[in-house]
Amino acid sequence: MKQIDLNCDLGESYGSFKVGEDEAIIPFVTSINVACGYHAGDHNTMAKTVQLAKVHRARIGAHPGFNDLFGFGRRPIQTTPEDIYHFVVYQISALEGFCKLHNLTMQHVKPHGALFNMAAVDPKMSDAIARAVKDTNPDLVLFGLSGSELIKAGLNHGLKVANEVFADRTYQPDGTLTPRTSENALITNHEQAIEQVLQMVKTSTVTAVDGSTIPMEADTVCVHGDGEHALLFVTELRKHLTEQGIRITSIL
Amino acid sequence: MKQIDLNCDLGESYGSFKVGEDEAIIPFVTSINVACGYHAGDHNTMAKTVQLAKVHRARIGAHPGFNDLFGFGRRPIQTTPEDIYHFVVYQISALEGFCKLHNLTMQHVKPHGALFNMAAVDPKMSDAIARAVKDTNPDLVLFGLSGSELIKAGLNHGLKVANEVFADRTYQPDGTLTPRTSENALITNHEQAIEQVLQMVKTSTVTAVDGSTIPMEADTVCVHGDGEHALLFVTELRKHLTEQGIRITSIL
Amino acid sequence: MKQIDLNCDLGESYGSFKVGEDEAIIPFVTSINVACGYHAGDHNTMAKTVQLAKVHRARIGAHPGFNDLFGFGRRPIQTTPEDIYHFVVYQISALEGFCKLHNLTMQHVKPHGALFNMAAVDPKMSDAIARAVKDTNPDLVLFGLSGSELIKAGLNHGLKVANEVFADRTYQPDGTLTPRTSENALITNHEQAIEQVLQMVKTSTVTAVDGSTIPMEADTVCVHGDGEHALLFVTELRKHLTEQGIRITSIL
Amino acid sequence: MKQIDLNCDLGESYGSFKVGEDEAIIPFVTSINVACGYHAGDHNTMAKTVQLAKVHRARIGAHPGFNDLFGFGRRPIQTTPEDIYHFVVYQISALEGFCKLHNLTMQHVKPHGALFNMAAVDPKMSDAIARAVKDTNPDLVLFGLSGSELIKAGLNHGLKVANEVFADRTYQPDGTLTPRTSENALITNHEQAIEQVLQMVKTSTVTAVDGSTIPMEADTVCVHGDGEHALLFVTELRKHLTEQGIRITSIL
Repeated sequence: MKQIDLNCDLGESYGSFKVGEDEAIIPFVTSINVACGYHAGDHNTMAKTVQLAKVHRARIGAHPGFNDLFGFGRRPIQTTPEDIYHFVVYQISALEGFCKLHNLTMQHVKPHGALFNMAAVDPKMSDAIARAVKDTNPDLVLFGLSGSELIKAGLNHGLKVANEVFADRTYQPDGTLTPRTSENALITNHEQAIEQVLQMVKTSTVTAVDGSTIPMEADTVCVHGDGEHALLFVTELRKHLTEQGIRITSIL
Repeated sequence: MKQIDLNCDLGESYGSFKVGEDEAIIPFVTSINVACGYHAGDHNTMAKTVQLAKVHRARIGAHPGFNDLFGFGRRPIQTTPEDIYHFVVYQISALEGFCKLHNLTMQHVKPHGALFNMAAVDPKMSDAIARAVKDTNPDLVLFGLSGSELIKAGLNHGLKVANEVFADRTYQPDGTLTPRTSENALITNHEQAIEQVLQMVKTSTVTAVDGSTIPMEADTVCVHGDGEHALLFVTELRKHLTEQGIRITSIL
Repeated sequence: MKQIDLNCDLGESYGSFKVGEDEAIIPFVTSINVACGYHAGDHNTMAKTVQLAKVHRARIGAHPGFNDLFGFGRRPIQTTPEDIYHFVVYQISALEGFCKLHNLTMQHVKPHGALFNMAAVDPKMSDAIARAVKDTNPDLVLFGLSGSELIKAGLNHGLKVANEVFADRTYQPDGTLTPRTSENALITNHEQAIEQVLQMVKTSTVTAVDGSTIPMEADTVCVHGDGEHALLFVTELRKHLTEQGIRITSIL
Repeated sequence: MKQIDLNCDLGESYGSFKVGEDEAIIPFVTSINVACGYHAGDHNTMAKTVQLAKVHRARIGAHPGFNDLFGFGRRPIQTTPEDIYHFVVYQISALEGFCKLHNLTMQHVKPHGALFNMAAVDPKMSDAIARAVKDTNPDLVLFGLSGSELIKAGLNHGLKVANEVFADRTYQPDGTLTPRTSENALITNHEQAIEQVLQMVKTSTVTAVDGSTIPMEADTVCVHGDGEHALLFVTELRKHLTEQGIRITSIL
């Protein structure tokens, strides 16, 4: 039986700055990526988010990012593999503390924003991230862009990996995402987006922008949690997946 | 046989901002308090400091402080027990990550700066800190001002505690430190400072500023690591302690 | 003819963290207090907020606060008058830069959050703030809690001042605000809140919680900008003020 | 008569984190670049540094950088021209406030670290910086790498510019600095470094690494302020410049 994980970024509020509608989206996903205080999130938000995950039985993952609160971790910053290794260890470990308070086991690590995108194509950055995950806790699953350098680095270090795919982004013939600067980067039509996910989950392929069918592993789908639009989409996606006999479940 | 621990704050550098002479002082102490990225320190410095502790066989402790890099954690900030509980969990856990990389066991937690001073006289803050330590790792030793509210809170939660005393500060008849605003707050004479430590370790008493002898438990002495002056003092202190048959050793 | 200024905190977004509904509230107020990047706000938000003020002809004021983004400037932090003097100079000057881009003249300075509350009762803090305002630009109006130490300090340094009053807070017989910890601190009834403002503007008095009538200068009323509730209240307040022949206008 | 300005980065301390030996180097330079609180420096340090400049009659410039305290502004960060424009306006304006306290006129703006290096080759970034300088205060001199895009952008916007050269870096035949990753990037020999400066000032040329003589305007030389080595070098450089009849003076 085919199965798929639905993951979502949560716990991005910082102090008095509130972000997202965590309580609304969490019932619909199976895994959450929790901000760890570098690009977003803070110790109070982490505690609250871990509790929320416990209540809703969502699996918890660390969502490490650049130490760039102003840029929300979305700005590419040039730094060393050693720096990346250390800040990933730091962020995973901090979140582990909150999981342990509730006797919960962390499931995964998914790099955030610019770190995720840069690592997807940079073997040195990916290697630093994979080593950090392995050295901190070798049982953690590494989430990365399907087929990317991050997935390769995870496998190279003996980690369990999860290939992440996107419902609302188009793919190039070489399997990379169409850059957001291109006109046809986004899939705004709900039905089309759901169709793409179903194809990926059922056949491990996707139809690229040039019409060709290319291989695309799909272990987890990234969904968004802000706005009615997002909630509506997740609800529809779940309905179609279930109707097609696909099991919606976390990775571990 | 009497024994005493010598502890020192380390790992306070932040990015390009260098603080302290960690490599010079570490051979002389038995326990180090490692900044965890809130009031000072960062993930790279933490990694380096833990490695340094391993080489010199110093026991490692977390040194959680207020999230106030500008004020170096020395400015009193009013916040809630819940906030304190969460940021202590966060900081201990982040440091645990680096200890685990080297198969090292963390020994203790010593709150930093204003957090240390405020908790010494505030039962609610002390309770939040002690609970955070216990819930994160009940084997950790809680360092606090000798006889303070923090020590009481630690005992109340079943933690092992270490009463910290100062060589270079005078004491009031009620056992509190003479405020720095008073003229006679500091002991600048090396011999007198060493004499005070010897008395505390050997007799569990100290001579207060009014000449009275009061009880004062001494499990660990706080020493400083910056400047030739500090190194000279620690060297002398170690010599006198050893001559008096006192064993210099970490708490665990 | 009686007149009153309506002021509101604006420009509190930081990077990707969005705060408030600035565009909805600004048409209803005559003065805005712009966050300057220490407790909230950033250079992009400041630029945008100053432009918004130009379009809506609202007068601009600096809203300096503690450098505590996490606490949103609401946590009391102990620091020196010299530090306060310098960070007020810094924040006013940074905002002046954006006003000059649009050939706008800044009207006022209103300290934010904990800085505002602490200065209201602390002559040294108030003196530092008033000196900073005067030395940066002696034409700026200093906004402070009506009758507080901040107002006195402003007058003492020859500044024009604006006594700020609150529609939704009750007053003690000595003219101070009833602490939020008291049950009767807040006025939640819209009519009662409007009645209080009308009394203050028309008679320069307020009815304290014990029923006594005490003097209360009212140059500006602080209104809030988040939520439909707030917008509704401001609309009603403006209607009643206008009906009573009170002119709603900025201070300068 | 030939003349040259000697500039140095100052005021980089942040809170308790002390950087540089500002008081030692300032007597030897004619212009200083003052950190403005984004990559280094803070409001107290800025106040102190401006006072120091007044005492030593050094001309003051703003040294705006990325908002990256952890990376000391040395890490390339991808951001928008609009963001750069606004943070340059903010940082110049904040420093203007401290200059005005002492009736001092700011002389120049020199972008810091990664911002300086990126702008040297990026016309869009340079344009944003030059516009920010011009719109904030058109009398300010823009310091940039000699012959770089930043110099071109300054001239394009009608600003007075100062071509900065380096004593201790070698040049490529195309006039760019040899990357630090190359073996021959640095000139470690004092005499050779001084010789290079004398050639640049006297003949407006430099000898590139391939032995060719290329044009190189030299209006200001960047010197360092940390360590005895640096002080010794500046002393020697001043001696040789003076002996050759070259006047050491600020730009304005």
